[in-house]
Amino acid sequence: MIGLANYKLVFSYDGTAYHGFQFQQNALTVQELLEKNLGKIYKQRIKVDPAGRTDSGVHARGQVVNYYAPEIISPQRLPLAINRIMPRDIVVLKAEVVPDGFNARRDALAKVYSYTIDNGFFADVFCLRYAWHIYGPLDLEAMERAASFLLGKHDFKAFQASGASVLSTERTLISIDIKRNNNFVIITFKGEGFLYKMARIIAGTLVGVGLHKEKPMRVQEILDSKERWKAGKTAPAKGLCLEKVLY
Amino acid sequence: MIGLANYKLVFSYDGTAYHGFQFQQNALTVQELLEKNLGKIYKQRIKVDPAGRTDSGVHARGQVVNYYAPEIISPQRLPLAINRIMPRDIVVLKAEVVPDGFNARRDALAKVYSYTIDNGFFADVFCLRYAWHIYGPLDLEAMERAASFLLGKHDFKAFQASGASVLSTERTLISIDIKRNNNFVIITFKGEGFLYKMARIIAGTLVGVGLHKEKPMRVQEILDSKERWKAGKTAPAKGLCLEKVLY
Repeated sequence: MIGLANYKLVFSYDGTAYHGFQFQQNALTVQELLEKNLGKIYKQRIKVDPAGRTDSGVHARGQVVNYYAPEIISPQRLPLAINRIMPRDIVVLKAEVVPDGFNARRDALAKVYSYTIDNGFFADVFCLRYAWHIYGPLDLEAMERAASFLLGKHDFKAFQASGASVLSTERTLISIDIKRNNNFVIITFKGEGFLYKMARIIAGTLVGVGLHKEKPMRVQEILDSKERWKAGKTAPAKGLCLEKVLY
Repeated sequence: MIGLANYKLVFSYDGTAYHGFQFQQNALTVQELLEKNLGKIYKQRIKVDPAGRTDSGVHARGQVVNYYAPEIISPQRLPLAINRIMPRDIVVLKAEVVPDGFNARRDALAKVYSYTIDNGFFADVFCLRYAWHIYGPLDLEAMERAASFLLGKHDFKAFQASGASVLSTERTLISIDIKRNNNFVIITFKGEGFLYKMARIIAGTLVGVGLHKEKPMRVQEILDSKERWKAGKTAPAKGLCLEKVLY
């Protein structure tokens, strides 16, 4: 019998240099590099399915893909083999063979994203690529009250960027955690799924509340309105990181 | 009376893009950018004196310089004014007017450097520019024993890179702290002064001990030998950061 194994990869990347995850004809993406280098190992064309696309400049600590390939290399050796030929800012952390039919996107139960804000008076030079610098003081209690309106299952249409074409804009947000760590404020979102730029629009809206430009209650009004223009601005890509995908 | 004020600046930089602190004819340095932009503010040529030079690729969280200039801008406003025109990877944190005669280098009582090692099995993609990746397990107790031989006043000639021309190679190391923080090992050096590449040669030697390539006692032999070739390799510049200068 000749067959293929279903591989699951967990990997991280610094998104600064890439035009997002998904393959594009005229721009360098993580998917292109991953498929090209997996192709070198398997000596055939490999097509990966990601748990979720990340936008241009967005980072990942635990992105997941699956793909079918001949079992010519053990999952233990695969990360070493691929990391040796990949650019250094993409690192495969783990590989395993999973049951046929497993799909990284469809079988994901939830995803965790972090959004990092540098809240120092001056920007930390070591985090320029990984944080949104907001020098005004942020009221974390107000941000938490605002976030509480978003928990649970809602129509998040107001928090979706234009350009998306999904059938339903209902999503379930399981938790939003907001923590201060020295000069940094980190917002962690756990949700069953996210709309196009949803985490960044929520982050931008919460920052507006934290700066006292909007009252926490405003978030409920935005949600009810289902209108994108009522929400805050989209926070910059560089602060966002896909932390992990839960199965 | 027409006079000049003596300014002291504390500033940070990501050294990745620079050929060190000190001015060079054919390479971009932090000093060149700082003097050029201070010159724009004061509308005259400004010459700064640093607490210490940092090598190509070395970072700083608390580098210090002093310079004489007309008091046309308050120390409170200066950081805002200069950061607006400087590249984003150099940030002035604080300015103050200090007594005439104060010199950032001569008056420094001690300097604190950190050396960061990424000790994860795979490199953390978010620290590629700020840490030396060593995937083998490091024995921190052995490194601490090795470091203990270096504390106090010694002739550190064996830990000085060639190319330096100093009268005395005696220096006093006040403390060496070695800590693990998740996958990272951070070595913090506090000393009255450091020879050319001394912190990086010590870091490289301690890593050799941590990997069990050398015994801790070997550090005493290296010190006694006063021969550079006996010490370990020079750890990469990117892991080193001038944390602060004490006055």
